[in-house]
This record gives sequence, structure tokens and C-alpha cells, in this order.
Amino acid sequence: MTVAGTGAFALCDASVEEDSEAPSRLTPGEADPSLPTYTLEQVQDHTGAKKTGVWVVYKHGVYDITKFIASHPGGTKILLAAGKSIEPFWQLYAAHNHEDVHKILESLRIGNLCEDDVAVLEKLRKERYGDGPYSQDPTRHPALKVNSSMPFNAEPPPELLMQSFITPNDLFFVRNHLPVPDVNINDYTLKVTGIGIGKGKEAEFTLDELKVKFKHHTVATTIQCAGNRRAEMSGVKQVNGLSWDTTALSTANWTGVLLSDVLQSLGISEEDCRPLHDCDVAENIGTCDDCNCIIQHVQFEGLDCDTEGKSYGASIPFATAVDPRKDVLLAFEMNGEPIPRDHGYPLRVIVPGTVGARNVKFVHRIVLSNVESPSFWQQRDYRGFPPNVDYSQEDYWKYAGDSIQELPVQSAITEPKNGTTHVVDDGSESSIVTVKGYAWSGGGRNIIRVDVSADGGMTWTPAVLNESGRRQKYNRAWAWTPWELDIEVPPGTKNLDITCKAVDSSYNVQPDTIAPIWNMRGVLNNAWHRVGVEVVEEKPEEEEEEEEEE
Amino acid sequence: MTVAGTGAFALCDASVEEDSEAPSRLTPGEADPSLPTYTLEQVQDHTGAKKTGVWVVYKHGVYDITKFIASHPGGTKILLAAGKSIEPFWQLYAAHNHEDVHKILESLRIGNLCEDDVAVLEKLRKERYGDGPYSQDPTRHPALKVNSSMPFNAEPPPELLMQSFITPNDLFFVRNHLPVPDVNINDYTLKVTGIGIGKGKEAEFTLDELKVKFKHHTVATTIQCAGNRRAEMSGVKQVNGLSWDTTALSTANWTGVLLSDVLQSLGISEEDCRPLHDCDVAENIGTCDDCNCIIQHVQFEGLDCDTEGKSYGASIPFATAVDPRKDVLLAFEMNGEPIPRDHGYPLRVIVPGTVGARNVKFVHRIVLSNVESPSFWQQRDYRGFPPNVDYSQEDYWKYAGDSIQELPVQSAITEPKNGTTHVVDDGSESSIVTVKGYAWSGGGRNIIRVDVSADGGMTWTPAVLNESGRRQKYNRAWAWTPWELDIEVPPGTKNLDITCKAVDSSYNVQPDTIAPIWNMRGVLNNAWHRVGVEVVEEKPEEEEEEEEEE
Repeated sequence: MTVAGTGAFALCDASVEEDSEAPSRLTPGEADPSLPTYTLEQVQDHTGAKKTGVWVVYKHGVYDITKFIASHPGGTKILLAAGKSIEPFWQLYAAHNHEDVHKILESLRIGNLCEDDVAVLEKLRKERYGDGPYSQDPTRHPALKVNSSMPFNAEPPPELLMQSFITPNDLFFVRNHLPVPDVNINDYTLKVTGIGIGKGKEAEFTLDELKVKFKHHTVATTIQCAGNRRAEMSGVKQVNGLSWDTTALSTANWTGVLLSDVLQSLGISEEDCRPLHDCDVAENIGTCDDCNCIIQHVQFEGLDCDTEGKSYGASIPFATAVDPRKDVLLAFEMNGEPIPRDHGYPLRVIVPGTVGARNVKFVHRIVLSNVESPSFWQQRDYRGFPPNVDYSQEDYWKYAGDSIQELPVQSAITEPKNGTTHVVDDGSESSIVTVKGYAWSGGGRNIIRVDVSADGGMTWTPAVLNESGRRQKYNRAWAWTPWELDIEVPPGTKNLDITCKAVDSSYNVQPDTIAPIWNMRGVLNNAWHRVGVEVVEEKPEEEEEEEEEE
Repeated sequence: MTVAGTGAFALCDASVEEDSEAPSRLTPGEADPSLPTYTLEQVQDHTGAKKTGVWVVYKHGVYDITKFIASHPGGTKILLAAGKSIEPFWQLYAAHNHEDVHKILESLRIGNLCEDDVAVLEKLRKERYGDGPYSQDPTRHPALKVNSSMPFNAEPPPELLMQSFITPNDLFFVRNHLPVPDVNINDYTLKVTGIGIGKGKEAEFTLDELKVKFKHHTVATTIQCAGNRRAEMSGVKQVNGLSWDTTALSTANWTGVLLSDVLQSLGISEEDCRPLHDCDVAENIGTCDDCNCIIQHVQFEGLDCDTEGKSYGASIPFATAVDPRKDVLLAFEMNGEPIPRDHGYPLRVIVPGTVGARNVKFVHRIVLSNVESPSFWQQRDYRGFPPNVDYSQEDYWKYAGDSIQELPVQSAITEPKNGTTHVVDDGSESSIVTVKGYAWSGGGRNIIRVDVSADGGMTWTPAVLNESGRRQKYNRAWAWTPWELDIEVPPGTKNLDITCKAVDSSYNVQPDTIAPIWNMRGVLNNAWHRVGVEVVEEKPEEEEEEEEEE
């Protein structure tokens, strides 16, 4: 047995002794002479079968992680390392470089890796990541609140985000799954292949060819991460994933060519793609030479890769891709500039009204298929789950919902911030608090109303909607609708329990509370957003003076 | 001053004495010699201006209804009778033939109508409605639960409705706004006019021409009334309108021609309809001879008329009408038969995924326009309102939301019924309750999950979804998704608080409670549906016998 791409490993003698108690170590992966030694080949026999469990390697250490999988904060992503060294994954996901993580790992320790295999793995690591996989990442704006630095994930401060309808590129939230690829534009092409294209007839475009061949369109869209407002959901019950606050979304003008135009130029249209016969498409991403069998999904592959060379990928329904009304773009400009590297240079798929994860960055390959993208992020992530299901259930996967595409109606308060104070001069008179926020809905649905409450939802007042948001086309309202409302704070008020909820053009509303929509991935939190503000009376100077005189 | 269509009225002498106290009468409209006498012309001077208020006539009585308008259960529809006799309206809306209504009316009495004008009105009434306006209505299935007989509004019993995916025509819920027209098919034509058609070039089709000229399509859609589940909303705070329970919706296979095909045959397509110059379209429904100015709405007029000869009407966005993916039909068949009279014979607009009110029955005129239908039901009804607004606010109209088009995600429990009992043989063992219901979402969004709770929403289990519902096309799922779930009732359970909530393909969910979505029109109730069931232990026969022996 070999590890793909690593060649054959030297075999070592090894004594196998299972069920040994592992001591707690703070320097992970140090050799421990009291434990048995294993070869990498032996480790590779433990990749998840019920009898063998899952083993992994870290430096000198061998670990049985079988029982830990359910509580892994990154979910089943941990299985990508089954039977392998986890070191390259820890280099990709730097959150692991933490003492608590090291302690957990060492508590799972069962043995040592033989020295020959340790050397082989170390050599490979150095070849792959001289200065680390993230050494080529771009620099970022210091105002961003970083939720994870490797891969880089960050959101803008709410008060900066809401300063403009269009978010400046530097402040646009960043959701990277992997290191940012360093693309040489002279080597770059976009390939289109799959059902309906014909074997050996895959299309290939340089960026310039795309720009010259097709009409340019500019579309203002808000992109939102499925995990936006996950931090609140964790407050109900712990979930896995990055702890996004309320600003894992931003709005830009994207310029590019319509995916539907590119498909049409290749002879692909809704009408053409009807099943003519049973077509055996190899590996679900192959081509079909002499028929137009059913294209149901359009898969996108990015140039960003994991340690196995697997790229980020995602897919959208063909019905969305081929419909010019859906405004799906292959975009090369963001707010009038070439797309910055963090946001998908040189080409990004923009799927308006659809979860950020399907807006694939660095796209270099499009596959027309009868199935969804085979990528981890389409198959095992970005799906909804019922509130009763968590990782502790062995059969949790059977409850996985459809892959997330269009997002539900959403709104949040960006000002005032939770836990702040509202200072009033004189407790005997009313004062004003200006509440600001955003609202948005997936699928192009317009925001038609936002209700704001200062008493936790007992009474409501409609907010004033931003005109740029309100004036968008019917059911092609891809960008958000900022809003604001001055609320009167009557004398004697001690606390404000400010709450908002939006209504979209389908009259969908946000649910009241988080618990009934809680899900183990911490996605799709669109419950009413709540902000608590304490009202504090500032004693007038005179009074203070008087008191001093007394 | 004259009443449109009634000719000149005789003038009588009349003494005017306002602010007189009205006695309480149980026979409304009887002459009362103690009150002053008015002419119809004087009544006609009171049609809503702030100084004059609103007066109406009923038989011999004259009434000042100004202060009553806010509490009129039918909302501002009452203004249709301002300055006129309300008798023809009461004949249309038979709910008024009730002692309570008569009491209210007489409490507003201010005088008598002069005898000459009473005679003129009575003559008119007889000419118009020999045997009453509803005498030509069809007979209906006795199983329907009637919410109003004139106009006829009725819903099927839940247990019958859920017996099949497609609802039999006789059981399909009926929502009539006016008497059912008695259409002679030999006289029937459909006219298409408005912007883009050209003056004097309006198209006209007989039913046979429509059938012959265009391809036939059959679409299974669920039609839901905006007021479905209004009865529950009234439980929070009184609303106006028919008290629909949970089955103001049904599903049928509709066969007809695509509206988009008909429009295309007239040279109307999305691309053609761009503004070329400022076009002054007369009365917003006129034609435009030499340009294609913006068509934003497609208006439909029915053959059902009110006492003024005004027909029922509604409109949908042009973007919906012209998009073949939206499957908007001009339908002539319902479940394989000519559409029954109650459901729109001979031609009905089917707008899948859109509120029932826009699925205009008996359609005989289509107008392409830059504005919505001028009908009462588009302009003043079927709109959302914020929860803080009711008729007691003088400026309530400024809070009227966009006209309802696509509906939000919905689900309800049809079995067991609220307030019923679940009998268990033996309280020491678990038993099973089978919960059944439906789920549906507007805009073609598929139902991807339904969660059911037996403890009022603390814990949830996903229901089993009906395959015919589940297998519909992505975002063209026009028909509902029935569901069911066996829930286990543990020993000792006293009550079941059964609750359901659905998730659609945009991951929109239903809100937890009704109060935050309450609106004065009682529409759009899609909060969790709740059903209370008492668990009762049936004593075994032996035990009873033993007790008898004792």
C-alpha cells in the first residue's frame, strides 16, 4: 500500500500493542520510547473501516482518533487525513497550532512512527512547503477582524461595512478555504467540458478571449457566507466552524461575461439538454460524444489546492447557470478593478442570490454534469441539518439536507453594538437611538420591509429602507437593502432589547429564535438579530457641582 | 349630481338636522318619522371628504358610517358604497344579513330617504337582480365547509383533502369574490391589449383559437388563498376577512397554453420591452402606438362583476408573465375536464407559486401595462401590513406593503385534529400517533424538509416527504409536498402539543409564532401550525367488569 504521490515507504520492524494508555504531552509528536512502533503502511491500514478505526501520524507520533471524530470542530474534514500524516493539514488549517489541540492529540497517542518513515514524510513536507503554504498569500487591510489566518477568513467591522452601499475591495469579507493561488495570467485558461460538449472537444479560453468574445455585464451582488452569524448560533449549543459575527457578507459590482452566453456559444441551452438515451458518463464528469443527456449541475473547480492536490470546487443547478435572468457571471473585475487575489483573481464565478461557497474563486474548469461537484465542500459541507441531529449520532449523515444554494431572508443590526450603552443627558426627557443594519434575501427576492423592535419583539416599527436597495428589479434584487430607524427612548428606560426582522418579496420572514433552526454545522442562522443596550443617565454638570458643593 | 348608471333622481324637500341620536332597531331601513328626510342627492354629497364624512342608504334609512369604517370587518371595501345605497352590496356579500349587522347599521341612523328616491332605487334593484345575484351560481359538493355562501367561499375537510396528491375538482377549495358568471362560450373571447400591442391592434381569441394556435401544457400547481389559516391569526387579535381554517388550498393539474407563448405571438418579449421614449399611456391601461415603452405588469380582468359593473381583476409582474420557466398558463382544463364554473370557466390564469388572488378566473381581457391592475383587489386588498398597524390608525394605508405575489414557505397538520383525543389501551406501553400534513412554498421553491415536534417545539423529528412532492423540478416545484410521521407517545404522556415547520429550497423556514407576523388583513399566516391532542387511557374491559362485580 502506498500513499498517493509519495512513492513507496521503507518498511520497518514494528511491534503492535494496542489499547495502551497515552500520557499527556505538551510537545506533540515527540518520540516516546514507552510506546510501540508502527510503520506508515500499518497506519494506512486504519482509514475508517469499523474494525480498524482511524489512525493518523504527527511527526513521531501515531494516534488513534476514531473516538475523537465526532467532536472534531472541523467536522468530518478530519477524515481527509485518515491513515496519513496530519502535519500538512495542520499547516493548511493553522488553528491547530494551539496547546489545547496538542493536549487532545496526545491523549489519543498509541505509538511511534518508525524513524525511516518520519524522514520520508519530513522530506516531502519540505519539498511541498518551503516557507509554508500560506507564504504567498496577499497582505490584507488591518481593519478586518480575522477569524482564521491560515486559511485567511475575516470580516469587516460593522460600522465600516455600512458606510457605503458598495463595499470597498479592501473591506470585503474574505472566506478562503485554502492558500491563495499565485496565478501567472500567461499560463491561465478556463476549460469547459462535460455532458453536451463532446469528447475531445472541450472548450478553452484565455482571459483575453473571454473578454473579447462575450458581452460584458456588471451586476451588483451581495455575497454572504453560509456561516454568517454562526457565533450567535453557538450561543444556543456549540457548533463547528469559524465563529463569524454579523458581517460575513459584503456587496460589490462584479463585471464579467454571462455564463449563459458562454454556454450558448458552445451549443448548450436549456432546450438542447434533454435525455436522448441512457448515457454512461464516466465518473460523472466525463463527456458525452453523440448525445445530449441531462445536464443537471454545472461544476466549478478553483486553482486553490489542498495537500493532495485537490482543488476547491462547488456546483450550481444547471437551471440557474443557463438562465440569463439569473445573471450568473464569470467575473474578472470587482468594483472596476481586476479581482484582487483574495477574491478570486483572475476569474470568479458570481452566482447572485446564492451562498458564497458556490461563488467559486480562481475558477479554471467548468464541468457540465448530471451530478453535483464531487468536492468535499459540495458533498460533505454546506448542507443544512435538522435541529435534532449532531455529530454524536453515528447515522447523522443520513439527515444531511440538500446542498445550500439560494439563501433565506436575512437581516441584522450593525448599530448600536450589543453590550454598549446609550447615554442620556436627562432622564426626564425622551432621547433618540439611531438603529442601522442590513437586510437581504437569496434568489433575487427584494426586501420589502424591515421591522424593528426596541422591546424584544413585543412592538414593531418599520425601518426606512435604502433607496438603492429598494429600487432593484423585481426578483433580481441581488444586492442588499441597508436600513435605519430612529427609535425614541422614553424617560425611565433602563434597557433596550433591539431586534430586527426582514420581509422579502415572497413575504418570507425570519424565524423568531435560533434553537429551532440550530444545526450542527452552524449555517443558515437567519433568526431575529438581537442587540442589548443599557441606557445610562449622565448627571448634568450643575448637579455634579452642586453635589460637590454639598 | 347623479349616480353613475342610475339616471337622474327626483328631488324631494328635505330638512337637514345632523347629530341626532339614532334609536336601536332590529328591522333595518324602516322609515322613522322622528328623523329628518334627505334626498339621494344630499346623500351623494357625503362620499368621504373630511368635512362631510360618509353617508349611505339602506331602504328607507340614511346612515352616517364615517366612524364605523375603521371597524368594518370587510375593511375599506365599504367605501365602494359611499354616497350610495348599500343594498346591492349586501346582496353581493350576504354575511350582512345578520341581526348583529343590522343593529350596528341602525346605531348609525341619521334620517330617512325621501319616498321618491326609495322607489327609484327599488326599481333599479329589481331590474338588476330579479332572483338575486347569486341565483345562477352552480351547486357545490356538500362536503365543503362553507365560510361564506354569497359569494361562495368554502374549504374541503382536511382528511378528504389529504387523500390524494391531486385534489378532485369537487373538493377543490373555492374562493369567489363575486357571483359566478354564466358564460355563453359562443359569445366568449379573450382580448389582449395595452403597451406594445399598438392602438386598434388589440388581439382577440376565441377559446377554440387559443386551443388551436398554441401548444398545450399541463402543470400541477397548488393554489393557496392569502387568507389560509386566518382563523388562527384571529386568535392573536381580531382581523378582517373570511375565517379560513387550514385548507384554503388545493392542488390540480391545469391544462392550457403558456401566456409567454401568447405574448410572443404578439411580438412581446422581454427584450422588446425597453423604454424608447417617455410614453404617455392613457389611464395606465391604454395602448402605445409607435414605441415599446416599459411593460411592468400584466393585468387580468374577469367576467365576474360587482353592482357597478366593475369586474374582478388582478395583475402579476411582467417578468413572471413573460418567462416560460414560470409556467404561467391560460388554462381551459382542470384535472382533464373543462374548468368548472366555480374555478374559472371558460378560461383561468394559472400563476404557479403565486397567491390565489392573481390566478384570475373567467379571464376575458389581458392588459400590458406599466402599472398594476386598478382593481380594488390589487390596489386595496391582498397586501401585507406591519404588525403594529390596524384600521384604528387614520394613516394605516401608508404602511400597506407590496401587493402579494409569491407566497412564503408554509406547512400545516391535517391529522390529528386540534382538540381531539388519542386513546391508548394501556398507559404502561408506548403507542403511535400518525401525524399528516402538507407543505408548500411559493415561487416554485421545493420543500426539502418538514420538522415535526410533539412537545411544542422543544425537540423535532423530520417527517417522511411524499415522493410526488419531493421529485418536482428544482425551483419549479409548483405543487405541494404532503408528509407524514409516526410519533411515539411514551407511557404517562397526558398531552401532545404537535407542531410542524417546513424548510424550502432557499432554506427559508416558517416563523415560530403568529403575533410578530399579525396583520390587520389576516393574510400570510405561515407561523408554525400547532395541534393539541389529549392522551386518554381506555380502561381494559376486564378491569371494568371487575369493577362492576365489586
